[in-house]
Amino acid sequence: MATAGKVIKCKAAVAWEPSKPLSVEEVDVAPPKAHEVRIKVVATGVCHTDREYLYEAGKGMKLRTFPLVLGHEAAGIVESVGPEVTQFAPGDKVIPLFLPFCDACDRCENPKTNLCRKNWENTQAGVLADGTSRISCKGQQVYQFLGVSSFCQYTVVPDTSLAKINSSAPLDKVCLLGCSVSTGYGAALQTGKVAKNSTCAVFGLDAVGLAAVMGCKAAMAKSIIAIDINRAKFEKAKQFGATECIDLNDHDKPIQEVLVDKTNGGVDYALECVGEPDSMSAALESTREGCGTCVLAGWTETETMHVQVINILMGRTLKGTYFGGWKSAKDVPKLVEKYMEKKLMLDEFITHNLPLSQINRAFDLMKREESIRTVISLEQEDTADLHP
Amino acid sequence: MATAGKVIKCKAAVAWEPSKPLSVEEVDVAPPKAHEVRIKVVATGVCHTDREYLYEAGKGMKLRTFPLVLGHEAAGIVESVGPEVTQFAPGDKVIPLFLPFCDACDRCENPKTNLCRKNWENTQAGVLADGTSRISCKGQQVYQFLGVSSFCQYTVVPDTSLAKINSSAPLDKVCLLGCSVSTGYGAALQTGKVAKNSTCAVFGLDAVGLAAVMGCKAAMAKSIIAIDINRAKFEKAKQFGATECIDLNDHDKPIQEVLVDKTNGGVDYALECVGEPDSMSAALESTREGCGTCVLAGWTETETMHVQVINILMGRTLKGTYFGGWKSAKDVPKLVEKYMEKKLMLDEFITHNLPLSQINRAFDLMKREESIRTVISLEQEDTADLHP
Repeated sequence: MATAGKVIKCKAAVAWEPSKPLSVEEVDVAPPKAHEVRIKVVATGVCHTDREYLYEAGKGMKLRTFPLVLGHEAAGIVESVGPEVTQFAPGDKVIPLFLPFCDACDRCENPKTNLCRKNWENTQAGVLADGTSRISCKGQQVYQFLGVSSFCQYTVVPDTSLAKINSSAPLDKVCLLGCSVSTGYGAALQTGKVAKNSTCAVFGLDAVGLAAVMGCKAAMAKSIIAIDINRAKFEKAKQFGATECIDLNDHDKPIQEVLVDKTNGGVDYALECVGEPDSMSAALESTREGCGTCVLAGWTETETMHVQVINILMGRTLKGTYFGGWKSAKDVPKLVEKYMEKKLMLDEFITHNLPLSQINRAFDLMKREESIRTVISLEQEDTADLHP
Repeated sequence: MATAGKVIKCKAAVAWEPSKPLSVEEVDVAPPKAHEVRIKVVATGVCHTDREYLYEAGKGMKLRTFPLVLGHEAAGIVESVGPEVTQFAPGDKVIPLFLPFCDACDRCENPKTNLCRKNWENTQAGVLADGTSRISCKGQQVYQFLGVSSFCQYTVVPDTSLAKINSSAPLDKVCLLGCSVSTGYGAALQTGKVAKNSTCAVFGLDAVGLAAVMGCKAAMAKSIIAIDINRAKFEKAKQFGATECIDLNDHDKPIQEVLVDKTNGGVDYALECVGEPDSMSAALESTREGCGTCVLAGWTETETMHVQVINILMGRTLKGTYFGGWKSAKDVPKLVEKYMEKKLMLDEFITHNLPLSQINRAFDLMKREESIRTVISLEQEDTADLHP
């Protein structure tokens, strides 16, 4: 490619500081170093986590270093590869990953966990393996959120944080497998191991929660109770497999009591997809004594939940999921195949499509609970004039 | 038997009110009603739970109704059976059970739980199926702790709360399978499912904790780290299989940090056998990211533990055990067989033997941390003069 080895000038939505809207700027994206891949980002979802690290920095989330390019749920095409990259070539369709899979460490070999720690400290700090970011703006280094930064037309990621996918996959759909859908779907199937004919409750019906509903359905759960404060999401929940929806506003008593009554003792599986400690406690308490499992899938970095010890002693299990328990680079291509075979829904999560220039609208839609997923197209921007 | 169908007068250690020593009194033990069995209690362990419900009533435990005969870890011989009892006959050696196994409900049929609820509300309230106790003293009903009340020379229990055991079993040893040893041993083997070659930490080295150590050894754990504030228990812990002992007093930093450092990231299994929320949080935090499992085996009814959500999200599992996950009447006879085959230690738990008349000394020894288990012999009392 003509751009290989050169700095690419392109557009990115830069977060200059917390609690301020993103600013679409021209940025410089440096070429990939050893074991790095530069990708042209074609499409990216806007995730609650992006919003929370921007607008609720410090509240339940650790403060990240700014300026920052957010975005971590994307799909794109390899533009060029750095030295020592063997598994990717320009033109490959890929999904960048905030969870690595190095396929060499004890964790990658351990079937019980997906939490590979390759480059972990650096990517959490917003930089790549050499301690720097590949993105800069107005001469200033811009940090890469979770090592990804997909709100940018090009980004550079480690070769262990990238999944090569089916070359026919529609990138504006499979981008959702970079975070939300994989997380919720895996929370049910991988972490919860939801059993056939079981009863399930899903707390929170954003993309992670709807994907959890879809996972419970894939596991052939008998009853899938979808819970939210926003009835507008119920039709979608039923589309994904919910057998019943509960509006929290309809009940004076705590939701755990409602569920215990309704299910004659509690659900077999509760999947918490909100990320709030009170909701987590309610989810745990809604599970069946003796054998109920509560899976936490909603994200918070710093919060503490209260667990009534007796609930655990009486046979309940509390588990958590990160990226749905999937071994990222190994499993994401398989999830893409499931979508291609129409065994996994993605299109139905997408309520809005916007160009990068309107990315702040995606945040507004999310805040106002009017969207499930907005997919940002990075190609709709006119980038021609930015290339040398 | 000459006593069948009649009230038996015998001795019991009665708890007249909370926080007062037990009083050895003459009591009346009524004949068993339908589906009940009257047993001659031969030996009983004194468990921390007995002490806590007496001396720390309301602190972490629900207040029980007094007067009460405590004791729930015992072995004895069937004296007589009530109508409709088919599985027991006078002379059978038995272990009374605070956890029933009715072998008919959905829970007894469910391999995932041992929490049969037969007669549950009544036994928790200190009475049998008809809402009354079979023990009285000075004309007053005396409640049966957990439906058992083994600090009495005779007691009456439901036929679903009794295990018939090997007729050669020494009752003054196998009584420990009525609570502590089964709980700790099962916490490791049944609930935790400790894996071969894993690293384990056991918090608290009373009988439950030492049994957990023994369970980890039976599971062929590679490393078993035993933790207590009382070094005097370390020799015993090593006898049961501990590969290393840690005195909490030797460390300024939190024990979870000590363990994470020592094990290069945390233990695979942490077994909490103290029953204190802070110890539970420490146990959870001492487990390995990605795949660590914390099993709560220490007892508290009303306390709340704090869980840092990120610890769960990053792949840790929190579980709890009640009676070690064993299906009581079905599994206890098998544990007795293991003891008879010398595959499970019991004698080593017993540091003191005392007659019923000295039962308050057993509580003192426990409070002063001088005993592991005191076994009370109920036969050493002269009961001849009490029988009609």
